[in-house]
Amino acid sequence: MVDDRGPHDEKLALILRTAASIFAEKGYHQASIRDISRATGISLSGLYYYVRSKEEILFRIQEHSFATVLENLGRQLEGEIDPEVRLRLLVENHLRFFVSNMKEMKVLSHEATALTGDARARVNSLKRRYNDLMIDLLRQIRPDVEAERVRVASFALFGMMNWIYNWYRPGVDAKVEDLAAEFTRIFLHGYLGETAAEPRSAGKEPAGPSIWSE
Amino acid sequence: MVDDRGPHDEKLALILRTAASIFAEKGYHQASIRDISRATGISLSGLYYYVRSKEEILFRIQEHSFATVLENLGRQLEGEIDPEVRLRLLVENHLRFFVSNMKEMKVLSHEATALTGDARARVNSLKRRYNDLMIDLLRQIRPDVEAERVRVASFALFGMMNWIYNWYRPGVDAKVEDLAAEFTRIFLHGYLGETAAEPRSAGKEPAGPSIWSE
Repeated sequence: MVDDRGPHDEKLALILRTAASIFAEKGYHQASIRDISRATGISLSGLYYYVRSKEEILFRIQEHSFATVLENLGRQLEGEIDPEVRLRLLVENHLRFFVSNMKEMKVLSHEATALTGDARARVNSLKRRYNDLMIDLLRQIRPDVEAERVRVASFALFGMMNWIYNWYRPGVDAKVEDLAAEFTRIFLHGYLGETAAEPRSAGKEPAGPSIWSE
Repeated sequence: MVDDRGPHDEKLALILRTAASIFAEKGYHQASIRDISRATGISLSGLYYYVRSKEEILFRIQEHSFATVLENLGRQLEGEIDPEVRLRLLVENHLRFFVSNMKEMKVLSHEATALTGDARARVNSLKRRYNDLMIDLLRQIRPDVEAERVRVASFALFGMMNWIYNWYRPGVDAKVEDLAAEFTRIFLHGYLGETAAEPRSAGKEPAGPSIWSE
């Protein structure tokens, strides 16, 4: 269904970049190959020379994004053995990539479940590699923390990082390096902190099944 | 364009709850009033007795969600003056609400920009109230922190919390109270921590304009 050509071709890169903008703007399901043809100025038959379907375009955006994040990270981590420094490099690499590719970030987040079959499996395997890398780092930093808390901590950090597409304005807000330092600091202090949370629950409001129920 | 009827009516509540599921599943733009009619078993003319348009449905979901979060929070905070405890109550209230309403959470996040005009303005004013409340709390906890860092910290915490719709499985993962305690602990330690981050930048990889450029 999908093959292994990367977006080395300039025209393919244009197609994927433009499609990411369109998917981010109007949503994958709403967008058509015709929209992409119009926005790139490439004819429909021209598009079909590069990609077989709209789904292949979405697959290539997702795969190329995660593969690039992982590849860059591999280079960043080379020769660095301190797990806390490695974690900051991960945060910095993640933020740098997505600040430069916020349209792609929105597409990865909003269209995470739009792919099916083989394409979905391949993207998920990249995500799993990335996630495992994060979990390994967190375990190295605190080998004493139980698996479930490491998992929650990793989602807390991914949440901090991935939420930026909702608020961050490149060129206006803090530089990527400063943002990465701040997030890492906030996260590491909490993750390293020994103080257990006092389980003082609000307790007044039981969890309801839905707001819509009386 | 929209009026002030809340979802007090049982049938209206059914419409909004069902619509939130459908919007979460296939996206707001993809979904039709006809889908909602089919899923609720309420005829089209029946639906139009309650709402004027698909946009009004989206508006009501967003408005009712934020209004409920704020209302519950108001009750939780009553009589509590310690800003750190108030912050934990905010986190717990937020998580409790959204764990019980994960479809709505996805709709609020993914369709944040789908509303227009008056409806958008009214939802944004609720969001602003909520955000201001968070910022005020963070300022009370650390009056010495500069505004820009308080802003980044608030987004870090909102990111942690809002990301849960991507991973949290109610009934399987940690209880809401424990998750809230853990998030608050992670966040507060970092936010309270005095240690400035060492600005050791990765530095090897300049921020590029886009992954698709060579």
